[in-house]
Amino acid sequence: MRLRRIVYAVMVSRWAPDARERLETAALDLFVENGYEETTVAQIADRAGLNRATFFRHFADKREVLFGGEDVLAGLFGDAIQGASPEATPSECLHAALVAAGAAMTPQQRAKAAQRVLVVAANTEVQERGLLKHARIAGSISGALRARGADELTARLGAEVGMLAFRIAVERWMESDDDEPFALHAAAALSELLTRAAEFDSRSAIPELTRGKAAVAVPARTPRRSWETDERHPP
Amino acid sequence: MRLRRIVYAVMVSRWAPDARERLETAALDLFVENGYEETTVAQIADRAGLNRATFFRHFADKREVLFGGEDVLAGLFGDAIQGASPEATPSECLHAALVAAGAAMTPQQRAKAAQRVLVVAANTEVQERGLLKHARIAGSISGALRARGADELTARLGAEVGMLAFRIAVERWMESDDDEPFALHAAAALSELLTRAAEFDSRSAIPELTRGKAAVAVPARTPRRSWETDERHPP
Repeated sequence: MRLRRIVYAVMVSRWAPDARERLETAALDLFVENGYEETTVAQIADRAGLNRATFFRHFADKREVLFGGEDVLAGLFGDAIQGASPEATPSECLHAALVAAGAAMTPQQRAKAAQRVLVVAANTEVQERGLLKHARIAGSISGALRARGADELTARLGAEVGMLAFRIAVERWMESDDDEPFALHAAAALSELLTRAAEFDSRSAIPELTRGKAAVAVPARTPRRSWETDERHPP
Repeated sequence: MRLRRIVYAVMVSRWAPDARERLETAALDLFVENGYEETTVAQIADRAGLNRATFFRHFADKREVLFGGEDVLAGLFGDAIQGASPEATPSECLHAALVAAGAAMTPQQRAKAAQRVLVVAANTEVQERGLLKHARIAGSISGALRARGADELTARLGAEVGMLAFRIAVERWMESDDDEPFALHAAAALSELLTRAAEFDSRSAIPELTRGKAAVAVPARTPRRSWETDERHPP
């Protein structure tokens, strides 16, 4: 058993370049093998050929080791939107963000993602942390859109649409047998979602309510334009 | 101190009709007064004039006491969409769901919501549970839309748009000084979001990618129509 561990640690140290990645790999393997609840931080560090102190230098707790990639993604999404050309529309910004995310979606990450799905499905506590991370990525997207001059609702809607496109793209990327790059799945998912978004009928909502409550004035739409800096969308 | 508690318990028992609501009220008061972390289940039960066993008959843990309303909302949203007329479009379904949610958004709930914002802002663990509950409400919306014949992406997009409209409406409802009913804020928020959704340009996403990767075919849009049962939206 001890020999197996040493052999593993040597193997791991050869192909896993840094401690953080080794810890992530060891944790995912152990979670899948023995269950998330049953795995301790000491076991993760041991499997990675490191110690507990090193683990806690990289991750605040056991759940964090599952979501290191999410912090990277939040940065990639935000930077891509901020770096898009000044004339880019919100959908072009979202597309740029998803393509940038593709840089982090390597075949190695795809294998990890499959393990992670198993772990997350089995544990509510882990799901909760995943949702918090997703909310933070969404915050990064909406913040970057706002910084470009998008109004509040466009920024928040863009973040939700972008995150949904990302989730759908990850699902398809994981299910696909071929080596189609993530960016293609992401572009397709975004395009399909935006087509559907355009099909939702905005006028249907208000009249129904005013029929029921004719005496109550419906608040007017805020006068701001939805994408104030974009000359191509006149009011 | 003891007298104060007895007086409070008598007061509470007069206007709070059931144990569940009394526990929710006591918990929110204690969380705001003393902090979420510092408050124990025993203290909550004591403040409500009940015991720990009663608490755990109603709530699985301390976090759950904050989110009882979310389970009610998931039911209201799903039922309203299922009960909408067969010809209703997805946006009309979302509108019906938000109006139905209005039934739960009483002035008393508005006061509780303000307390809850304070508690949630101060505690990551509570935020995570809130996000899990929101994901479950979104699942209730997408499930109900799917059951009406919506394709997968329309159902999921509808759920995200509906939940964002709900969150924005709650924010405005809490900030407004007058007694405008929640349903009006919800209808306005939904209408504004759908207007912005229609302004996102679905065609901009694909060409940019194909310019960069001309040799790689972009996956075609899935052939299903976005709202298969709706005769008013021909393909």
